[in-house]
Amino acid sequence: LLALDWGTTSMRAYLLAGPTQVLANRAAHMGIMHLPDGGFSAALVSLCGDWLQRYPSLPILAAGMVGSAQGWREAPYAKTPAGAADIASRLSSVEGPMGRAVHIVPGVISTGIVPNVMRGEETQIFGACALHHGLAAEVRRLIVLPGTHSKWVAMRTGRIDNFITFMTGELFATLRQHSILGRLMPTAEHGDHADSHGFDLGLATAREHRQPGLLSALFSVRTFGLTGHLRVEQLASYLSGLLIGYELLEAKSTFLNGSAPLPTPVLLVGAGTLCELYRRALPQFGFLPHQDNLSNAAGTGLWMIAKAAGLISTNHESVHA
Amino acid sequence: LLALDWGTTSMRAYLLAGPTQVLANRAAHMGIMHLPDGGFSAALVSLCGDWLQRYPSLPILAAGMVGSAQGWREAPYAKTPAGAADIASRLSSVEGPMGRAVHIVPGVISTGIVPNVMRGEETQIFGACALHHGLAAEVRRLIVLPGTHSKWVAMRTGRIDNFITFMTGELFATLRQHSILGRLMPTAEHGDHADSHGFDLGLATAREHRQPGLLSALFSVRTFGLTGHLRVEQLASYLSGLLIGYELLEAKSTFLNGSAPLPTPVLLVGAGTLCELYRRALPQFGFLPHQDNLSNAAGTGLWMIAKAAGLISTNHESVHA
Repeated sequence: LLALDWGTTSMRAYLLAGPTQVLANRAAHMGIMHLPDGGFSAALVSLCGDWLQRYPSLPILAAGMVGSAQGWREAPYAKTPAGAADIASRLSSVEGPMGRAVHIVPGVISTGIVPNVMRGEETQIFGACALHHGLAAEVRRLIVLPGTHSKWVAMRTGRIDNFITFMTGELFATLRQHSILGRLMPTAEHGDHADSHGFDLGLATAREHRQPGLLSALFSVRTFGLTGHLRVEQLASYLSGLLIGYELLEAKSTFLNGSAPLPTPVLLVGAGTLCELYRRALPQFGFLPHQDNLSNAAGTGLWMIAKAAGLISTNHESVHA
Repeated sequence: LLALDWGTTSMRAYLLAGPTQVLANRAAHMGIMHLPDGGFSAALVSLCGDWLQRYPSLPILAAGMVGSAQGWREAPYAKTPAGAADIASRLSSVEGPMGRAVHIVPGVISTGIVPNVMRGEETQIFGACALHHGLAAEVRRLIVLPGTHSKWVAMRTGRIDNFITFMTGELFATLRQHSILGRLMPTAEHGDHADSHGFDLGLATAREHRQPGLLSALFSVRTFGLTGHLRVEQLASYLSGLLIGYELLEAKSTFLNGSAPLPTPVLLVGAGTLCELYRRALPQFGFLPHQDNLSNAAGTGLWMIAKAAGLISTNHESVHA
C-alpha cells in the first residue's frame, strides 16, 4: 500500500507491506497549502514517482485535508458513530498520475449544540486501535490527540462514538505570538513548557478559577507577572498549564459523570513532549493516563482502512506479529 | 486643572474649569509607547506648552499607564476597597517641564484566586459616579467598561469594592487577525459586529454550551461555517457574540447569586458601538442595562480626584449645573 498522510502543511508517504511493516517513508513540505506547480498529481509524483513506477498495481490511499473542500477531491464527512468499515465504505477517488486511482479517506462529523469535525485524526485513531491490544474490543475508551486543535474521542466497541475539539494549541500560539501576554514573555530558549512550577500553577488556577472561567483567568498571566508571583521566564509555561487545565475541565464536563475516574486509561496519541504535559496534567483532573503514548499511527490506520475497503488482499497477519 | 488621560497608545489633555467644564481638549498619538525624543516632559510641552505658560499655577494631574512601571513615575496600586479619597491620598509626583509638579493617579489592585489590576479605569469610574445622580450613594452598583480588557467593577457606597478583568476584546482581535478562524472571515466592510443574526447565535451558543466551555465553543466558528449554518460574512459577528456571551457568563458567576436580576441597572462606560453590543446582550444573561451609556468620564474623574487631593480649591459647584 502507498499510504499518504496529507495535511495542510506537510505530506508524508509510507510504503507499507503490512500494518506496521514500513518498507520506506518520506515527507515533504507539500501540504495542500504548499503545493508545487501542477498541483496534487505533481506533488505525488515528486515525492513517490519511483514507487509508482516500480509497483504498477500498488493501491494508493490518502487521509487528511487532501479530502477537504480545499483538497484534491472532497470526501464528504461520515457521521458518528463511525468505525473503520463505515469509513472504508465511503472513500472518494480521483485519477492521479499515470492514470492511477487515488482513494481518499473521509473525515468524521458529529452533531450536537455545535458540530464537530475531524479529518486525518480518524485514521490515527483506527491505527491506534489496531496497535493497542484489545483497544477495539473495549466497550468504552477515550483517545486524546493533543495539538493545535485537540481532539477528545470517545470510542465504543471500536467505533468513534462522539468527539469534541479544543482550540488549545492554536490559542496558545496565537496569544504567545500576538497578544500583550506574549509580549511579557522572553523568547523561548528551552521551549515554552519547560518550567514545571509555572505549568503546575496554570493547572491549579484552572481548577480553582473554574468559575468564573477562562476569559478572566487569562488576565492572570499578566497579573501574576506584575505582582512577582511568577518570573517572566515562567509565564509561557503558566499560560500553557492554564489552557491545558481548562481543556481538561471542559473534557471532564463532557465525558466524566460524577467524580469517579474513568475506569479505563486515556490513550494519548501525538508528539512526545506534548503528550508528557498531558500525562502530567490528566490525574489532577480525575483522568488516568495510559502507560504508553503513541506518536504516529497514521500509516497503520491507512492500512486498516485499506484492508476494510478491500484495496489490499493479504494473508491473515497480526499487527503484533 | 490640566487633566491628562495618558495611556499606552495615546495622550488626551483637558483644560478644565469644573468637573464637566472643558475649556479645551487635545489628543496626540503620544502614549507611553510612542513618546517623542525627550520623553514624557517633552511630550507634555509639545501638547500643552501654551497652557502651561498662560496659567503658571495650573495644577497638573495624570491618570493611566503613565503611572505604571514603564511610565513616567510609578504610582503603586491602591488596594480595594478604594474610593476617590483613597486614590487622592496616594498620588505620586514627578517634576515636569518648567519645574512644575505632575501628579499621577495610582491604579487599583484587588486580590483573590488571581490578582486583578486597573490603571486609568478607576478615574473613569469616579467620573461616572460624579456624572450620574446618586450613583455614589447607592449601596451596590455594577459598572462595566467593555474593551480590549473589559473591566466589571462592583461599587459599594462610592468605592471600588472588587473587580474582574476579561480579555474579550484582545482575544477577539487576536483570533480575528492571526488564527485559522480569522482566515475564514472576509475583510470587514461594515464592521465585524454588523450581523445581528451571527452575533445573537454567538450569544446563544455561549448560553447553551456554557458547559463544556469556551475552548471547545471556539471551534464552532469553523464548523458553523463548514456546515453552512453561517455565511462567511457572519462569522466575525458570531465570534464577537460568542466571546461577549462567555464574558457575561463569567460575570454572572462572579456577581450574581441565584437567578434574580441585579436590583439596579448595570452602567456601561465606553465607546458607543461596543456599549450597544453589550446593551443587546446583557438582558439575555440576567443583567439590566442602565438606560444611558457614558462614552468618556476621564476628565470628570480627574477633576474629582484633584479636588479630593486638595489640588484645586473651588467654590461649591454641582456636576449637574
